[in-house]
Formats: sequence, C-alpha cells, structure tokens
Amino acid sequence: MYLVGIDIGGTGIKAGLVTQQGEIVAKKECVTNSKLGFDRVMLDIKQLVDQLLQDANTTINEVKSIGVGIPSFINQKGEVTCVNLGWHQVSIVEKLHEIFPEVTTFVENDATVAAIAESRFGSMKNNDIAVMLTLGTGVGGGIIINGKAFVGAHGMASEIGHMVIGENYFDCNCGNNGCFETFCSATAIINYAKKLLENDKTSVMYDKCDENLDQMTAKIVFDAYRENDELTHKVIQRFKSYLAIGIAGIINALDPDIIAIGGGVSRAGDIILDGLADQVRQHILYKEEQFAEIVIATLGNDVGIIGAAFLGQ
Amino acid sequence: MYLVGIDIGGTGIKAGLVTQQGEIVAKKECVTNSKLGFDRVMLDIKQLVDQLLQDANTTINEVKSIGVGIPSFINQKGEVTCVNLGWHQVSIVEKLHEIFPEVTTFVENDATVAAIAESRFGSMKNNDIAVMLTLGTGVGGGIIINGKAFVGAHGMASEIGHMVIGENYFDCNCGNNGCFETFCSATAIINYAKKLLENDKTSVMYDKCDENLDQMTAKIVFDAYRENDELTHKVIQRFKSYLAIGIAGIINALDPDIIAIGGGVSRAGDIILDGLADQVRQHILYKEEQFAEIVIATLGNDVGIIGAAFLGQ
Repeated sequence: MYLVGIDIGGTGIKAGLVTQQGEIVAKKECVTNSKLGFDRVMLDIKQLVDQLLQDANTTINEVKSIGVGIPSFINQKGEVTCVNLGWHQVSIVEKLHEIFPEVTTFVENDATVAAIAESRFGSMKNNDIAVMLTLGTGVGGGIIINGKAFVGAHGMASEIGHMVIGENYFDCNCGNNGCFETFCSATAIINYAKKLLENDKTSVMYDKCDENLDQMTAKIVFDAYRENDELTHKVIQRFKSYLAIGIAGIINALDPDIIAIGGGVSRAGDIILDGLADQVRQHILYKEEQFAEIVIATLGNDVGIIGAAFLGQ
Repeated sequence: MYLVGIDIGGTGIKAGLVTQQGEIVAKKECVTNSKLGFDRVMLDIKQLVDQLLQDANTTINEVKSIGVGIPSFINQKGEVTCVNLGWHQVSIVEKLHEIFPEVTTFVENDATVAAIAESRFGSMKNNDIAVMLTLGTGVGGGIIINGKAFVGAHGMASEIGHMVIGENYFDCNCGNNGCFETFCSATAIINYAKKLLENDKTSVMYDKCDENLDQMTAKIVFDAYRENDELTHKVIQRFKSYLAIGIAGIINALDPDIIAIGGGVSRAGDIILDGLADQVRQHILYKEEQFAEIVIATLGNDVGIIGAAFLGQ
C-alpha cells in the first residue's frame, strides 16, 4: 500500500506518492488557485492524485491514506483556518473524503507535518522529544513527543513563532510586539537589512539587490555575510542572538532531545549553526548540563509531502 | 498503605503522611539546616518521618513510598543540584533509601511536584494537559501531560520562569535579561514598587512599609492596590501585562487545557484573575478560539507534601 502526502503552500501545491518506508515514488505540483476558491483547490488536488496514480501505474485501491499539510490552524472539529489562502474553517478532510471515499484522510499544520517527517525519516530520527523550527516567511514550530505530534488541548500548540522573546521595532502581523518570528524569519532578516541600509548604502547587500531595497532577500543577506560585509554582520548577529534566545526558551520549557531548523533560511545552515549552541547555552537555566542537539533539517523541499503522507501512521 | 511527602524549602522542611486518596493524616515541620550540610538535613527528614509514623500510630512497613520535592535541577542520574541550599549533585534518593531501605524513594523539582498535586487533587483535576505556574520568590513551572509530569529529555523542562518574554531594567539571577520571573515573581513586584517609590513617596505603599523600602512585600503592594492607590496600580498593571504575555507564550507553545497559578503571590488571586483571560487572549495567536482555563491553585501550603507523596504513583 502507498501513502499520499499533499503539501499546500501559499503559491504551490505539491503531491507525492510515498511508500511506507518514506520513499517518494512519484511527485506532482500545481499552483495554488486560492482565488478560485476552496472547491477548485480540492479538485486540483484530485487531479494531482490521479496523475500520481497514473505515473506509478497504480490505483486508489493501493492508497492507504491521504494526508494534507497546510499553514493553518485546525480546530477540534478538524476545520481548517488558513489566513494565507483566505480560508475560514473549511473541512479539508471531509471534502477529500467525498472525492476519495475509499481512503482515510488527515490534515495537519505544515510545521507539525515537517516535524513528523524529520522525526521519522530525517534529522530528528530516533529522538523521543523533538522540536522542529521552520524559518521562512514566518517562524513555524512542530513538537514531537514520543513519536507523536503534540498539538495541544485545542489544536493550537507549537506556535513557537509567536512566543514573545523581546521587544522589536515593528509589530508582528498577529498584533503582538516581540514575537520570535519578527526577529528570526526571512521577513525579519530582510526587514532589518533594509532598515540598516536606509542609513548606510555602502554595504555589499545594496549592490547585490541592484540598489533596489524591494529586491532584498534573505539569500542576498547570507551571501553578503560570506563576503565579510560589515553591515551584514550586524543583521546576522541580531538574527542569531534572538535565535539563541528563542531556542533557549524552547529548551527551558520543553527540554527536547533535539531541535531541527528547517525552512528556506536553513539553506544557510553553516552560518546559522556556527557558534549557535554556545550562544544558546548562555541563555538556558542549567548552563553546565547537556541540552538539546541543534541541527539543520535534512529532508528539504520534500519534507511536507513525506510528513503529510505519514499523518495518522 | 500510606505515602510520605517531603517538601524541602529554603527555610523549612514539611513532611506529611498521606493516604492514597490524597488526604494528609499527619504533618510535621522543621527548619532547613542547610548550613549544617546535606547529611544533617537527611537526618532531620528521618526524624520528621519517625514522628509522623508515631503520631499516626503506624510503622515504616505501612509506607509505600517517600517522595521529596525541592527547588532544584535533577539530572538524568537523579542527582539534585539546589542553588538555594548550596547542594551540587547530591543523591537524595540514594541517601533516603539508605535510611529507609524498605521504602521506594523519589525526588522531583518543587514546581513539578506542585503541578502533580494540583493535577491529581486540586485546581487542575481531570485535565489532560495542565501547566502550573508558581509565583513566589521566583517563577516556577510544572507541566503535566496525560496525567504524568513532563520533565523533558534531560530533566530540565518546565523552567518557564526563565523564558525570556521582554526586556527588563534589571538582569535575572540566571544571567539573562527579560526572564518571566523578573516581571512576575514577588521579588519582581517588590523591585518595581521600590523603583517607583524612589521618585514618588506619596503612595499608600510607602506608609504600609513604615517608610522603609526594605520592608516592602508583595502583600503590601496588593493591599495598597485594594485601596486604589495610583502608583500601586502601575505596579500591578505591569505585573499583569507581563503575566498575560508569559501565559500566552505557554498557550502558543503547549496549548494546555488549564493553567493554575500558585505560590505566595496567588493569595491575591482575585486581583490576578480580574480581566487576565482577556489580556491573555490579546497575546495568543488564535484569538477567537477557546484556550486554556486560567485558575488559582487550591491546595495552598499542603501542595508540596501531597505532590511529593504522589511521585511515582
């Protein structure tokens, strides 16, 4: 039997046919037509699944379950609210079950899905208590306790990106000031780089974005850092000092065996990990004790497909 | 069979003989002779237990287990480090087992012990995911997941008081700036009251401490608040706004069913709870969803004895 994993993102949907050993045997993608409405997106998913089955020369009868990961809040009734796609309490599981009545379907928050995949097949394998941090447009979190996703009493746990860890010069989209993601997301890195460049345009970063701050990306910042650009060092230092505070908070609260950093920003894993554990140690309570290993996630772009496929498994 | 619970504090030790239904049938206290060394304190505990058994007209053969709660870090080997008492990696369980070879012995952090007691017999009964916050000299935390104390991978979980939740005007004893306990402990309340009184001595608080700031207590602050003292309102408002941020952080990370507030400061439970849930709602990510009930702990001074007695049960 196969598992199907669907990774719904703000711009694209990825679908994969996965073996029970975690290997992807077929993969398909399409754009997220969120403007055309929820039902249309569900039909696009049906098409992707049909194509997957065709490619692998198999049928829906060989599919054990379909799992969906999506950046969202899922309430106790299983209703999905996804601000990015403008969906409020939609029933993905119900709808997919209508489309594929013979298959069990599951849905979970995308960062939790990533945590499941890294914990079963990637960087966090063989660890009882594992926390995944995804550093992308925002900061997501997924908590695994004894092999299972921990989603809390009302399904709203592991929103680590919205824990307040300091005071910031701009407010978070969620209305708070000082959220982890306002310091450590790609957006936060870009925002701070722009802020510094407003007063000092001599930086390599300014050249790399063709003197147009709207073209700034986290990749440009990390690339400029590798060229020992002074202003960029300030950006990365600030990012890493708050990353250490945030990770220390996770350790003080949950004391996991391992913490994996994923998401787009983690492509600069060497820069992120360099000296990070020592910085974290300064902020945890028990500074002389062994604490969580901090690693970079290993499953890359496939993490959403694999994790979603293993929902309910 | 009875259970024995020992609550070791910085100034006193409380011991209780407890039924398996959580009722204390005998109770004894003594001072914590920490200056006379670890062995002496262990002997004092032996004496307390002997007195308990005598009072209840029973013998050690009727005792199923002895549990100890202590403000400390307990490593994976069970060694206890208690900064307050100057103990570094002492083996309480081993020592008590030498003294009472016929009885199983346990040791756990005091806030975790309080969480166990409130979760089994007090304010957090019948909740799967429960978090205890103790607001006293510091801020302690205890996490219960599915009825069991969650202590993390290396025994250092639930140190919620040392999660960074903002920037403060003084550093924490742990070396960090902005720890939850530097905003919300009794010490923090006293510290901020003194700071305001340095510039404005017209407050009721100043009269209540006999114009001697060294005599300031959290009780004085809460009493002055009840008299609608303007300066005191600033102190309590600050305390509560950070308490809301800290609790929202717990909800964003762990999404418990219930959060109980205990410790000395919780005696002003009416003032603490007044409007608190609404303040917390402003800081959580999913503002329209149901979130953890926030209550005041109910077991009072006996919480340490009862929780310690039920370690390992």
